[in-house]
Amino acid sequence: MKNFIFQNCTKILFGKGLEREVGKEVKNYTDKILLHYGSGSIKRIGLYNRVIQSLEKENIEVIELPGVQSNPRLDLVRKGIDLCRREKIEFILAVGGGSVIDSAKAIAAGVLHSGDVWELFENGEIKEALSVGVILTIPAAGSESSGASVITREEGWYKRPVESDVLRPKFAILNPEVTFSLTPYQTAVGIADISAHLMERYFTQVFPVDLTDRLIEATLRSLIYHTSIVLREPHNYDARAEVMWAGTVAHNDFLSCGRIADWASHMIEHELSGIYDIPHGAGLAVIFPAWMRYVYKENMNKFIQFAYRVWGVETDFNFPERAALEGIQRLKGFYKENGLPISLKELNISEERFDKMATKCTEKGPVGHFKKLYKKDVLKIYQLAG
Amino acid sequence: MKNFIFQNCTKILFGKGLEREVGKEVKNYTDKILLHYGSGSIKRIGLYNRVIQSLEKENIEVIELPGVQSNPRLDLVRKGIDLCRREKIEFILAVGGGSVIDSAKAIAAGVLHSGDVWELFENGEIKEALSVGVILTIPAAGSESSGASVITREEGWYKRPVESDVLRPKFAILNPEVTFSLTPYQTAVGIADISAHLMERYFTQVFPVDLTDRLIEATLRSLIYHTSIVLREPHNYDARAEVMWAGTVAHNDFLSCGRIADWASHMIEHELSGIYDIPHGAGLAVIFPAWMRYVYKENMNKFIQFAYRVWGVETDFNFPERAALEGIQRLKGFYKENGLPISLKELNISEERFDKMATKCTEKGPVGHFKKLYKKDVLKIYQLAG
Repeated sequence: MKNFIFQNCTKILFGKGLEREVGKEVKNYTDKILLHYGSGSIKRIGLYNRVIQSLEKENIEVIELPGVQSNPRLDLVRKGIDLCRREKIEFILAVGGGSVIDSAKAIAAGVLHSGDVWELFENGEIKEALSVGVILTIPAAGSESSGASVITREEGWYKRPVESDVLRPKFAILNPEVTFSLTPYQTAVGIADISAHLMERYFTQVFPVDLTDRLIEATLRSLIYHTSIVLREPHNYDARAEVMWAGTVAHNDFLSCGRIADWASHMIEHELSGIYDIPHGAGLAVIFPAWMRYVYKENMNKFIQFAYRVWGVETDFNFPERAALEGIQRLKGFYKENGLPISLKELNISEERFDKMATKCTEKGPVGHFKKLYKKDVLKIYQLAG
Repeated sequence: MKNFIFQNCTKILFGKGLEREVGKEVKNYTDKILLHYGSGSIKRIGLYNRVIQSLEKENIEVIELPGVQSNPRLDLVRKGIDLCRREKIEFILAVGGGSVIDSAKAIAAGVLHSGDVWELFENGEIKEALSVGVILTIPAAGSESSGASVITREEGWYKRPVESDVLRPKFAILNPEVTFSLTPYQTAVGIADISAHLMERYFTQVFPVDLTDRLIEATLRSLIYHTSIVLREPHNYDARAEVMWAGTVAHNDFLSCGRIADWASHMIEHELSGIYDIPHGAGLAVIFPAWMRYVYKENMNKFIQFAYRVWGVETDFNFPERAALEGIQRLKGFYKENGLPISLKELNISEERFDKMATKCTEKGPVGHFKKLYKKDVLKIYQLAG
């Protein structure tokens, strides 16, 4: 186990009807907020009204900035920064999924940065930010208690992440009922993202890290078990709750303790969702199994453990590699069964683009820790995912 | 899953040599501290000197209050309160195990309470406290990031817990190397305490709580696996690290999310360690299996799951009760194998005391949630543990 420092102060309010508490939570910080959200689905499900009522009850002034797209864009972030400065806003309430939250975080950091906000995504160092609060609507990105934000710059279609403890939301309200209206595809895409956050941490070359290994396996097993339930029964509160909580657990960094996560699959995927504007989780469903097939020999035991403990694949003591490969196959089968794409073809991304994508993915150097991947490696992974 | 609120802001610094960071961490809060510790074992292992050096480097004034006993006493807490008031101290650094930390927390709350500190333990409500920092030496109580404190009043030998988020330490430094010198018995007693914290949360009547069930099972399995390693190889850093981290994970309340924990075994045990001055973990090793045998029929499925997922006991689909009982037997065997007592006889507590102990345990009403236990029930559990 490596030395580590862990602190996560996000206050989680989890359960039925808790969006009605948002006014009281905000009141601990301010009387005026930027309300940031997406295309208006929060209005269709009635969430918007409940939020506004709760804020009004506490006399909180609300300035709105809707319009966040998935794979959130730098343009809107810049607008949000101007708006906050003009209106002297010091608190941003994000109501939505990971895109809305990431956009809110970028605005929060940008307001306090004297230069252009994209500099922060180029340099990756953020030392201060306004406060952000969250009402989550999609279990997926884990942004509700993480310090991460991923933004896409339209010019050149660069999708870049930053991470800093100052970006962790002050509070996050998670009501599983809000997720009842997600379509099976939205649900499955979110679950793929959650599973990827767990596996990015799982596949480490730091050894031994037994307790966190087991905690990740436990979260994956619970997530996998509940996936078919939420897809069959979208109004099953208990199953929706397990998935929603798994989404937070997967990415609040508690499961990073003492280990170095990989993140290559995320970086390789960003070249898909950043340009082709497909859901990040769908891209991950394609990339992660391909990454696995490319790297598993770097630490086959870890893949045998993954197969056994997550998928129940009996260890084959004579041909251990078979079990390792079977675990990867099970993951791929899981994504497919849930209606996700498992090849770049299905995403209409053709082979002639691969070289450019691999170049851009590695233009700041190799990606990943489990195995350091250079351009030629990333290219092979795109080919395997083809 | 029940609605829940979770927030834990304790900053964890985990790993080799990190006690040398204590000066810097303290400096974020103050220039003057009460240094609280036990009988001096921290001097024997050199920890005391390293801590003092780190504090001196940051010019932090140190007022010392050593002498904390296991099952920490109210008398010393009162002395600490007087000392802090006299010296105008606003930060307490606890260097030791759970007893030292609990004592520090009681002082921290008592200084800001106008009445006698024991009132807080009678009423159980604590709204403010001085800041506490921790350097942990024994993985056991989990007090390093919990909001709990348990103090024993010598008059009448009452051992009483309190809990409040304001008691969570600001930071906790955990260096597994510091635990190399623990004796096998100290180690085993600590592990029994950790396992009890996990099982108190596990045995809930809230259903379903699948993800947290699995996270608790994962922590128990890792803890059980590493127990024989640390007992055989006390200087095995990796195994000591897994046990130490499990101790924090077991009691930082992350594993309480969405469920109601039981705590009856803790309350029943307090009548042993509060009076006979035996280690809390040794008392728990005696009480917990007895409690299980008394209550398992209240939710046998949970005990079958415990047997299967924690101990690998195959579910017996024809005689499921056998598997449930086998799980309890495995736990008892685990404690025995680790050199712990498994009966009250071994602790020299004789039957004629049971009635008085059961009366005192329930004098504020029934204990436990899995099954509400009245005096007659507690008496039967003492008899089963006899």
